[in-house]
Amino acid sequence: MRLYVSIGPNPRIVRMYAAERGIALEEIWIGLAAGENRREPFLSLNPAGQLPVLEIGPGQIIAESLTICEYLDETVDTPSPHLIGCDPFTRARTRMWLRRIEERYSQPVTASFRFGPGLAMFGPRLRCLPEAAEGMAALVRDGEAWLDAQLPASGFGASDMLTLAEIVLYCSMDFAINRAGLPPDPKHSALSSWFGRMDARVSAQLTKAHAKRA
Amino acid sequence: MRLYVSIGPNPRIVRMYAAERGIALEEIWIGLAAGENRREPFLSLNPAGQLPVLEIGPGQIIAESLTICEYLDETVDTPSPHLIGCDPFTRARTRMWLRRIEERYSQPVTASFRFGPGLAMFGPRLRCLPEAAEGMAALVRDGEAWLDAQLPASGFGASDMLTLAEIVLYCSMDFAINRAGLPPDPKHSALSSWFGRMDARVSAQLTKAHAKRA
Repeated sequence: MRLYVSIGPNPRIVRMYAAERGIALEEIWIGLAAGENRREPFLSLNPAGQLPVLEIGPGQIIAESLTICEYLDETVDTPSPHLIGCDPFTRARTRMWLRRIEERYSQPVTASFRFGPGLAMFGPRLRCLPEAAEGMAALVRDGEAWLDAQLPASGFGASDMLTLAEIVLYCSMDFAINRAGLPPDPKHSALSSWFGRMDARVSAQLTKAHAKRA
Repeated sequence: MRLYVSIGPNPRIVRMYAAERGIALEEIWIGLAAGENRREPFLSLNPAGQLPVLEIGPGQIIAESLTICEYLDETVDTPSPHLIGCDPFTRARTRMWLRRIEERYSQPVTASFRFGPGLAMFGPRLRCLPEAAEGMAALVRDGEAWLDAQLPASGFGASDMLTLAEIVLYCSMDFAINRAGLPPDPKHSALSSWFGRMDARVSAQLTKAHAKRA
């Protein structure tokens, strides 16, 4: 299977997921900064112009990070545990947390970056709302506070359990800290400690931005 | 199984999904306008303060609309077809379209409503960005144009095939038209025709806003 990837937190989610599970994917790097994703031949592969994209056979394309991870979790067995879950209720809980993390944190982080520090790059490509940059950063803080309060109850970091929800939150936080200028407020100490533990994982180090796998 | 519901497009997604599949759920209505979802006892059920919520047993709670639909699609067989898919690749394609529809259309519709016409109701409850209301409405138009162009290729409406992606797009569009003041641009005729066909379905009529099932 071929995985089309680029810089940015979304391709990293799939790369980190694959690294955790020991799934080997042939990576094809697309030049996001040069806009290769917004023109042919890439648009024929994914008319949404986004990365990552998984090609499982001729003309058989799956786009969207979490959709790709769902597909790999369903179809690929490795000695490492599945990261969405092995029964319907566990999968439902992982997906529930994924959606909460995306809505309250990942989405405003992305918007805050595109409408603010990333405006010079994204403005000519996408409709950006610079008037909303500050408000989106405030939403990031709200989401951070909510997740910090939920951490103990949700079991994040309470054991060696790792799910796709943790991978998505980690990739978004690393991007928030290192690209979007939104490091977590020190008072959200549960979240900061959790981030430190995630950042130490081999899969996190292997997939740091621009660190192409050999 | 008990389904906690309210007015709004998200609970409707699960109600319409259940109606299409012939799944009977005990509906418990929560007063959204009165803010019952933002206080106890509801917050103990779902600390996110959102609806719908599925209760599958004592203390066994699943929140988030699409997560609930995924759970029902996985666990409940009825004479009606599953609406996410019966094999991993079909499920992946449905999920991919779901995410595109949410990102490009449903999310800006919700934001446009909350930051604009719905501000009096949502302003005291959530952080709203009224400065982004107009930009979000423009994003809705962009998404509409993209989906209109994708309709023929995606197979929407090309056959009797129905998936959860169609249900989500329909519920968002009906909300955009009737609550958010964002009817589709007449030039997006593929999308408008498709909406008309969806609106004629029994499941659509049974779940119109405020139309509580008997």
